[in-house]
Amino acid sequence: MDQRLSLITLGVDDLARSREFYEALGWSGQEVQETVFFQAGGLAVVLWGSEKLAADCGLERRVGGGFDGIALAHNVRSNEEVDALIAAAERAGATITRAPATTFYGGYAGIFLDPDGHAWEIAHNPGFTLAQDGSLVLPDFSKS
Amino acid sequence: MDQRLSLITLGVDDLARSREFYEALGWSGQEVQETVFFQAGGLAVVLWGSEKLAADCGLERRVGGGFDGIALAHNVRSNEEVDALIAAAERAGATITRAPATTFYGGYAGIFLDPDGHAWEIAHNPGFTLAQDGSLVLPDFSKS
Repeated sequence: MDQRLSLITLGVDDLARSREFYEALGWSGQEVQETVFFQAGGLAVVLWGSEKLAADCGLERRVGGGFDGIALAHNVRSNEEVDALIAAAERAGATITRAPATTFYGGYAGIFLDPDGHAWEIAHNPGFTLAQDGSLVLPDFSKS
Repeated sequence: MDQRLSLITLGVDDLARSREFYEALGWSGQEVQETVFFQAGGLAVVLWGSEKLAADCGLERRVGGGFDGIALAHNVRSNEEVDALIAAAERAGATITRAPATTFYGGYAGIFLDPDGHAWEIAHNPGFTLAQDGSLVLPDFSKS
């Protein structure tokens, strides 16, 4: 199995509301058969109905709220960008579960939940390189 | 907000077991401070304790099993690769929730759960281009 991902599908309760949320943050998607696709670097972020996604996975839909068990992160190049993006997410209707602050790993980050409770960390981590195209390149930790 | 992702962190109950699972599938990670990092194309897949991840997100840990609400997908170039990877995942201890079969979108895919119940679809979707480096490129759906 190659060390890569192709798509991340987020289960949503209201496709139009979720699409609007991500587009308010500046993303642009394509809708096909009640599914929204966003090209996100070398993979796609997909919005699809929670019920359909759970059934497609052969699983019962999760009942109640709480933590997904998965967190997404979007790294940026400065603390100011973290502040700006968390503020933009809040204006777009996100719930801020952690206001931007210094993190234990020496960076600066805040966390918001999208309209379906999916957690996004917006982080400035000086230890992780962001390439020109936005790709994240892990350091060789054995050398740090 | 740029249209990209930097990290996906999967909450795990037993870090060693989860690392071993992904390494049995051929991945190679680095462990730092009870966290495992895998470079996965232009982003990182990270394994971290569920309790710590939930607390870091300012959320309650989810109780019980069921669907995460998020599905990951790894696309490959042939139906045979789907079969081989689902078989490899099963040998590594995954639960297969959907045996490889033709999908509604005209592809071929199977689904497994990793040791913590995170869902992975292994898919061959002839409609989505996989670049030489494994990046997924969405079609312009308005032209299809």
